[in-house]
Amino acid sequence: MSNDSFKTIGNALKAANSILIFPHVNGDGDAIGSAVALCRALRKSGKTAYILVEDSIPQNLKFIALDYATCNFHVIAEPDVCICVDCGDYSRFPKRKDKFLSGKKTICVDHHGTSKPFCNYNYIDSAAAATGELIYKLLAEMDAPMDKEIGEALFTAITMDTGNFQYSNTTKETHEIVAKLYELGIDANRISIELYESISPEKMRLESKILSKVQFFGKGKLAIGFVSQDMLKETGAKLEDAEGVVSQIRSINGVEIAVLVKEKEELVCRVSLRGKKYADVSKIAESFHGGGHKKAAGCTVEMSLSDAIKAIEEKALESLSEYAN
Amino acid sequence: MSNDSFKTIGNALKAANSILIFPHVNGDGDAIGSAVALCRALRKSGKTAYILVEDSIPQNLKFIALDYATCNFHVIAEPDVCICVDCGDYSRFPKRKDKFLSGKKTICVDHHGTSKPFCNYNYIDSAAAATGELIYKLLAEMDAPMDKEIGEALFTAITMDTGNFQYSNTTKETHEIVAKLYELGIDANRISIELYESISPEKMRLESKILSKVQFFGKGKLAIGFVSQDMLKETGAKLEDAEGVVSQIRSINGVEIAVLVKEKEELVCRVSLRGKKYADVSKIAESFHGGGHKKAAGCTVEMSLSDAIKAIEEKALESLSEYAN
Repeated sequence: MSNDSFKTIGNALKAANSILIFPHVNGDGDAIGSAVALCRALRKSGKTAYILVEDSIPQNLKFIALDYATCNFHVIAEPDVCICVDCGDYSRFPKRKDKFLSGKKTICVDHHGTSKPFCNYNYIDSAAAATGELIYKLLAEMDAPMDKEIGEALFTAITMDTGNFQYSNTTKETHEIVAKLYELGIDANRISIELYESISPEKMRLESKILSKVQFFGKGKLAIGFVSQDMLKETGAKLEDAEGVVSQIRSINGVEIAVLVKEKEELVCRVSLRGKKYADVSKIAESFHGGGHKKAAGCTVEMSLSDAIKAIEEKALESLSEYAN
Repeated sequence: MSNDSFKTIGNALKAANSILIFPHVNGDGDAIGSAVALCRALRKSGKTAYILVEDSIPQNLKFIALDYATCNFHVIAEPDVCICVDCGDYSRFPKRKDKFLSGKKTICVDHHGTSKPFCNYNYIDSAAAATGELIYKLLAEMDAPMDKEIGEALFTAITMDTGNFQYSNTTKETHEIVAKLYELGIDANRISIELYESISPEKMRLESKILSKVQFFGKGKLAIGFVSQDMLKETGAKLEDAEGVVSQIRSINGVEIAVLVKEKEELVCRVSLRGKKYADVSKIAESFHGGGHKKAAGCTVEMSLSDAIKAIEEKALESLSEYAN
C-alpha cells in the first residue's frame, strides 16, 4: 500500500482544531523529539495540541517535553485528529489504543520497516533515518511556523536515532535537514550535554555493572548483557537507566550481535538487540513477536531472566550461523 | 595577517610535482584524515605525494592511513611543496622541522585559533570545525579528483573533531560538507565502526572498573576516577586503554570537573582533566606543570596514586570554589 502524501496529511492537520499526538511507549529521542516538534508547530499554528503518554518521559528528554506531554487522557475530550509518531501499531501504545481510535481522523508517521498502514492517512518510510526527518518534511510541506525550539526537538530526534550520524541509516538528506535546522538557530552542543552528559551516578553505576558482566558466545560474535531487579536495587538505578548500554556492548571488538536483557518484572523481560555489520537482528526480535530495524530491534518475552538469556542466545547463535561460511 | 586564498594555495599545489604533507604529532582523526584526503587527491592528479610522520599512527586510524604515511624522511629528497595540516607551529612536528623547511614552498592549512601564519602560504580559519572542512574546500576549489576514499578520510576528520557533530564548533556548513561527502559514496557506518566500535574486551572491563570506583567531591561537581597497576593486571588491559574514560566521567549529571588519575609507575601518575560548562581545567593542570585547553588538560605528577588523587582533589576544589557564588 502506498503512502499518502505529506500534502494530504498536512491538509488533514490543517483542517483539525484539536490534535493528540501519540509517541510509542518507552519513548526515545526520536519519538519524543518528533512529537514535541509537531506539537509546538501545531500550537504555533493556533491549534489545540498535546502529546499523550502512558508512561513517564525519560529523564534526559524532559527538557524538550516540557508542558507538551501529558498523561491526562481527558486533555482533549474528542480530538479531531490522533496522530502516532515513530510507531505504526497499537501494541506500541497499548493503553492509549481506544483514545487513539476516538480521533475523528487517524494518522501515522513512522520510519519503521515493520510498520503497516493502519490509519486513515499513513506515511511510513523506512529509508528515513528518523521519524524526525519525516516530521521536518511534513512541517516544511505545511509551511508550518518553525523556530529554534522545534529545530532542537528535531535535532534530538535525528541525532539520537542515527547514533550521532554514525549509523548506516544516516543519509545525505539527514545532513541536509540538520543543516536547515542550524538556520533555526539550534544549539546542538547544549542539546548534546542535556542528552548525553546528564547521566545520573546511579545510571553510571548500573552501566559499569552491566558491562562487567557481559558474556560472550559464538567466538565473541555474540555478546549478551543483562539487568536484574537485584542489580537495580544494588545501584539505585531504574530499568530505563539501562538505555543505550546495548550500543556499548556492540562497540566491543569482534561483536556482531549485541543483546541486553532487562528483567522488567519476575517473568517479563525486555530485550534490546543490535547488529554491527551484517546481522539482521529484526528477524531475531520477530521470532519473539517483537520488531524493529535490521541493526536495532527489540522484543518482550514472558520468561525469567535466565530463561530469556538462554532463549535469545540460542536464536542469536542460530542467526549468526546463517552468515557463517 | 590575512589568509591566502584557496585559489592561490591550490595553484601552488598544482604547480608542484612533489608534495610532502605534515600532520601534527600524536595524530588524531582530523590531522590524519585531512592528510590522507589531500595526499590521495594529489596522487590522483599525477603528483608524487606522501604524508611524513615522526611517530606511529594510532591503531584506530591505520585503516585510512594505509600506504600514504611514512616515517622515511628521504621518501621525497627535495619536495617542491611542504604542507602542514591541522597544526600551525614547528613545535607540533619538532623532529620534522628541518625537512619541512627544505620544501621550495611551504603551506599551512589549519583551524586552531592559536596558530599564526608562518609559511609562504597560509589558510588558518578557527571558525572551521575541523581542518578536514578546509581541505574539502581547497580540493573543491582546485577541482581535484574526489572519490569515496577521499570522502571517508574527510568524514573521519570531521566526525572526530566535532565529537560526532555534538561539539559547539559544528556549524551548518559542517553538515553541508558532509552531505557532499555522501555524494562520493562514503560508508560512514563502516568508518564509525573502525573508529569507535573496535574496543577490546579488556578495555571494556577496565572502563567499567574505573567507572564503578568514581568518587565525588564538592557536592558532586568534582568526580575523580583512577587506574592502578593492580586494576590493569585484574582486567588484562593497558594504561592507554583508559583513554577516553575521563569524558565518560564528565558525562555524569552535575559533574563540572572530571579527573582521571592513571598510575603509570610506582611514583608517577598521569592526570587527565575535563571541564563541562564553565570550569577552566588548564589552570589546574598548569599548577602541576602541565597544560592544555580550557575544557581538556593534563599533567604528570611524581606521587603515589593516593597522594596524587588527594593533591588533585584539593586543587580542583579550590578551582571550583572560585566559580561558586
